[in-house]
Amino acid sequence: MKKFVNNVDDILTESLTGFGDAHSDILEVKLKPDFVSRKLKPAKPKVALISGGGSGHEPLHGGFVGYGMLDAACPGQVFSAPTPDQMEAAANHVHSGKGILFIVKNYSGDIMNFEMGADMLNLEQQTIVVNDDVAVEDSTFTTGRRGVAGTMIVEKTVGSLAETGASLDECKNFGDHVNKMTGSMGVAFTSCTVPAAGKPTFDIGRDEMEFGVGIHGEPGRKREKIKTANEIVAELMDAILEDLSPNNNQEVLLHVNGFGGTPLMELYLLFEAAKKILDQKNITVSRSLVGNYTTSLDMAGGSITVTKLDEKIIEHWDSPVHTAALRWKM
Amino acid sequence: MKKFVNNVDDILTESLTGFGDAHSDILEVKLKPDFVSRKLKPAKPKVALISGGGSGHEPLHGGFVGYGMLDAACPGQVFSAPTPDQMEAAANHVHSGKGILFIVKNYSGDIMNFEMGADMLNLEQQTIVVNDDVAVEDSTFTTGRRGVAGTMIVEKTVGSLAETGASLDECKNFGDHVNKMTGSMGVAFTSCTVPAAGKPTFDIGRDEMEFGVGIHGEPGRKREKIKTANEIVAELMDAILEDLSPNNNQEVLLHVNGFGGTPLMELYLLFEAAKKILDQKNITVSRSLVGNYTTSLDMAGGSITVTKLDEKIIEHWDSPVHTAALRWKM
Repeated sequence: MKKFVNNVDDILTESLTGFGDAHSDILEVKLKPDFVSRKLKPAKPKVALISGGGSGHEPLHGGFVGYGMLDAACPGQVFSAPTPDQMEAAANHVHSGKGILFIVKNYSGDIMNFEMGADMLNLEQQTIVVNDDVAVEDSTFTTGRRGVAGTMIVEKTVGSLAETGASLDECKNFGDHVNKMTGSMGVAFTSCTVPAAGKPTFDIGRDEMEFGVGIHGEPGRKREKIKTANEIVAELMDAILEDLSPNNNQEVLLHVNGFGGTPLMELYLLFEAAKKILDQKNITVSRSLVGNYTTSLDMAGGSITVTKLDEKIIEHWDSPVHTAALRWKM
Repeated sequence: MKKFVNNVDDILTESLTGFGDAHSDILEVKLKPDFVSRKLKPAKPKVALISGGGSGHEPLHGGFVGYGMLDAACPGQVFSAPTPDQMEAAANHVHSGKGILFIVKNYSGDIMNFEMGADMLNLEQQTIVVNDDVAVEDSTFTTGRRGVAGTMIVEKTVGSLAETGASLDECKNFGDHVNKMTGSMGVAFTSCTVPAAGKPTFDIGRDEMEFGVGIHGEPGRKREKIKTANEIVAELMDAILEDLSPNNNQEVLLHVNGFGGTPLMELYLLFEAAKKILDQKNITVSRSLVGNYTTSLDMAGGSITVTKLDEKIIEHWDSPVHTAALRWKM
């Protein structure tokens, strides 16, 4: 296994400590139980947004803690759900009197542990379950659709709404709405390698790709020979647009996400291929995001996410944000 | 070769077009000759900063075009110097009457082509040659030391100074100063794969690393067995600090850069290991940057860069910047 590591058991702690030190202007890292929270408490009460999940998808979720986005994030071990005591500790640390809104990717382990964490709290709370992956119904770790790269779009837009002083119900309903407006699908060329396993999660041929892969290397729709970028994008877009059924002249956010091992050059090439398809269908790409935001350790591959935009989503996408991984207008 | 590609000859054009479309609020992409330039012309005359080099190091340099940093970037083919007509076209497009400052990484091909481009211009001009890599004197493509991840620190700080209306000589001298204050060194676990070659640039054993590697996969100081992260960082820091000989209580910027194939988790772990060493030496890490900024396509590995800070460098590091890959205070 070729990784920068001292002791496999210490990776998460050492990495989180470095993360806290590198961004001490924005956030704080607490250990045992582990959570990341905003450095600056909100000036007035607001709904506290808490997300989390297995580590290995960085910058998701800790990279999105800060003004305009999350109040806290709970990182589990690599590809393992965080434990309920993390959610409990984070919620008690960041709540400011307007309730807690959990944002959870739809994996059975995460759902269960977030529910157990919620039960330990004596605070008003709601949960948004993100399930934007259109590839498959049910999967290795999931009942229903998986939550993938669209999660950060929910976190950004609901985070912005929460800053305005909106109520817990308003934030919950808006998050469910953004989730419904969002579809994603990905493809992997290689497996990732989980440090504790020390070897690739799955085997794949030299000329094969996993079409519709999950962000932990879960199987997708099919294993097939690698195609051209345009062919891959056409198939991904077909699946996403079939799910979203956008209107003619629909405005969308187009997000091309890298899984960690694919160069930025290729991600921009994918973006261009996807934009051309949308242009041909009279769908307007009015917002865009390209980069490694929801990763799968060192997996080569990427995903495409489309969010149908309305005035409210645009307003809360464009608004100021100041986190380790996403910053604008501040 | 597992890449998102249609035709190898079209990768750069398709990727640049996507880059331009994804960031049309910040920059414009011109093709044949290829260059990236700021969308908004400066409000008052300023020194125009132009960088460039082989593609495959994204976000360097195009990702740093925008307010507070570069006026233009000239991308060559993958790992190949841009051609002189690119520099000529970019300079004629972005100059605003206060001269042109070229920022060039020290590779023989880049130096030669930037000089030829400069000769084609009838504009006042200077060149900063960045050579921050402390690993080796002379290398496969270089006479003298290589220019690596420290280049973006020169671009950020000189870009900020240029926004203040500073003269061409002031900008040139400040850039040379920042370069001198900066040292970098990297290590690779795997080779990268150049699309036109279709196979890894170099062979490396399953348990080996290239210590002091260049950003095109050039040999470094030695090929050896992989060590722990702390041991690797200790050796890298020894080499960098020997070169920079910082004073006691020196303030520094610590930049951990990923080569493209290494997860963010590991980069933060490296940051923590490096910071600990600096802490022990009473060197204060007062500014930090962790992420994939100067990449080598899909290479697994990373580099550490240290810049000794003074008041002027801090001022121009902290100042507003608005580019595709680096944004703050705007």
